Amino acid sequence: MSKEFFERLRARAVRIDVEEHLRARVERGDKLRVKLGLDPTAPDLHVGHLVVLDTLRMFQDEGHTVVVIIGDYTALIGDPSGRSVTRPMLSEDEIARNAETYFKQLDLVLDREQIEVRHNSEWLASMTAADILRLMAKATLQQVLQREDFADRMKEGTPISAHEILYPFNQAYDSVAVKADVEIGGTDQLFNLLFGREIQKAYGLEPQDIAVFPLIEGTDGVQKMSKSLPNFIGLTEPPEEIYGKTMSIPDRLTEKYLRLISGLDAGQQAEVLAMKPRDAKAALAFQLVKRLHGEDAARRAEADFTRKFRERTAPDEMPEFDATNLDLVGALVASGLAPRGRGDARRLIEQGGVRVNDVKVGVDHRLEDGQTLSVGKRSFVRIRVR
Amino acid sequence: MSKEFFERLRARAVRIDVEEHLRARVERGDKLRVKLGLDPTAPDLHVGHLVVLDTLRMFQDEGHTVVVIIGDYTALIGDPSGRSVTRPMLSEDEIARNAETYFKQLDLVLDREQIEVRHNSEWLASMTAADILRLMAKATLQQVLQREDFADRMKEGTPISAHEILYPFNQAYDSVAVKADVEIGGTDQLFNLLFGREIQKAYGLEPQDIAVFPLIEGTDGVQKMSKSLPNFIGLTEPPEEIYGKTMSIPDRLTEKYLRLISGLDAGQQAEVLAMKPRDAKAALAFQLVKRLHGEDAARRAEADFTRKFRERTAPDEMPEFDATNLDLVGALVASGLAPRGRGDARRLIEQGGVRVNDVKVGVDHRLEDGQTLSVGKRSFVRIRVR
Repeated sequence: MSKEFFERLRARAVRIDVEEHLRARVERGDKLRVKLGLDPTAPDLHVGHLVVLDTLRMFQDEGHTVVVIIGDYTALIGDPSGRSVTRPMLSEDEIARNAETYFKQLDLVLDREQIEVRHNSEWLASMTAADILRLMAKATLQQVLQREDFADRMKEGTPISAHEILYPFNQAYDSVAVKADVEIGGTDQLFNLLFGREIQKAYGLEPQDIAVFPLIEGTDGVQKMSKSLPNFIGLTEPPEEIYGKTMSIPDRLTEKYLRLISGLDAGQQAEVLAMKPRDAKAALAFQLVKRLHGEDAARRAEADFTRKFRERTAPDEMPEFDATNLDLVGALVASGLAPRGRGDARRLIEQGGVRVNDVKVGVDHRLEDGQTLSVGKRSFVRIRVR
Repeated sequence: MSKEFFERLRARAVRIDVEEHLRARVERGDKLRVKLGLDPTAPDLHVGHLVVLDTLRMFQDEGHTVVVIIGDYTALIGDPSGRSVTRPMLSEDEIARNAETYFKQLDLVLDREQIEVRHNSEWLASMTAADILRLMAKATLQQVLQREDFADRMKEGTPISAHEILYPFNQAYDSVAVKADVEIGGTDQLFNLLFGREIQKAYGLEPQDIAVFPLIEGTDGVQKMSKSLPNFIGLTEPPEEIYGKTMSIPDRLTEKYLRLISGLDAGQQAEVLAMKPRDAKAALAFQLVKRLHGEDAARRAEADFTRKFRERTAPDEMPEFDATNLDLVGALVASGLAPRGRGDARRLIEQGGVRVNDVKVGVDHRLEDGQTLSVGKRSFVRIRVR
């Protein structure tokens, strides 16, 4: 059982440090504390987060404990630069509300009974200036600046506010405070996870094992799924939105979504992948709605999508458009849907008026052969690539 | 009076920021708070510190207040890296003892009545992690890394422990806590002084004016005077040592020492500089001992030096050595005083056995024509450069 769990974990992960150590602990049946840090300023999760959440659930199903750390202390401070009004201090009420929003989403995947909830104010609020000095003395500036975002900003000369250096230390110290055995995250978290190991060692603890997992691309098929882009599928969006947005992903992403966030086992995945591409994607969309809203909602969303799609894309009413490239802005202009040029096309996209296969898309969306492209309720064309 | 004071200040300083602002405040008769930070882990001062201390005394004589800040909090923490055993935590007793050692030396120059003594634990000990975050948010990492020593270490790849980033912030915050109007220092302190201005501004205070002053070279005539080199003249060394070491400086430094650390006024300095080089240097040596130990001690040190010099350098007993270059190690070898070669010469110097004009010298010492070079009590030669 534990052996099979570890093999599934390894198949999902991009990298595990230290693999043999974690394997031994899992197979020996140690009960592990698996850390998950949450930033209560940004409580909306998307299906990209299922990569990590499903992995945490796998740990829970093996009897391990997920330790959720709510970063309330940092949120209480807000953006301390005093220069930015975009990241204001949160009140305790707002933090509690945001944390509850988080847990509602976590409940879609995790077993609340096997979650230990901690707030980082428990250990950060009582730290003195001397404690911070001692913490920062555990690593060199050069180590911290290896972190990809810092390294990029140093190279480009983009200002790094000096207090930002503290965040990786605080985050790593969380692993000390909760005595984490394991921490997992997306590949973008690799530095933070490894840094947690270093800081635990410096405080005389056995370092946590870490595992990083792939990030999935959003509905545009190009950029990583992100709340700050119009390419995400929110965990709590209505069934019809989740279904329709999933139907708008490029076919080549179906396998990755299936493997990492569908919740289907290997046999079920293989069945889906044996279908025609359009049907496989529909099965994926059905499954995503099913796991987030239940089977009835999935059926309704599917029917709704099919009906709308049929109404809007009846072939006898729709002109075809031979696309020479699959750039959305270019296609809108060339097909006459955005008659006033590229600026017009961008504005239409930004206003949410542009749909591909009846799903709103962002400016980075890449078209595929056979898709319908529409602006507003009336104008649409079918894309053909010869 | 105030006008004349400012002109003397400006004549000593390498740079004043903001000159017109400080001039106006001084001439208006504002009572200013002039900051001096002390590190109680290293209480021994040398005559190089007189450049700044004499300037502080000038401020006191104008009725301004010198605010001495004892860095007890940092010293209590020690070197928090846990990797170095060379900078251990100091006990409160040791800090108090070191502070007293400092004040004994400050009393040689400053008027204790016009000193306000503060300990930085007053404001640092009560700072929380949030306060540190807010403090560090006031500047960018790139600003801090402009500091010369950091910039050099970044370029060379020499590790900078992350907590070192905090020191300039703490030091600058001291200016906020004591509401400093003015801070002065050596040219090596320029970054810290300017940073104090930035942090004061960020906390809504009027920024301090700053002035930096030259660093003086030590007895070797090459390196800046430093406790970590064998080129310093300690403020509390015995009269004979101060006199003899001063006599060992290169003639070309006499004017700089006179101008910056002799305590003589411009007219007196001109009188000394009108003498022959050897006599001018003797007058400087006399004056340094006089201001640090009193006139009687200066007379005794002078007599002692003259007697020993005569005994040891009687021309009829001494062979001459034609130096082709003025490198001390090379001359020791070539003259036969270090018969076993350069390694031997270095060892003799390190063991303190090598004297120039009867004063112990370090390995960087440059010889001048007419000086006597001796090893131990017996072997000596007179240097000749043709």
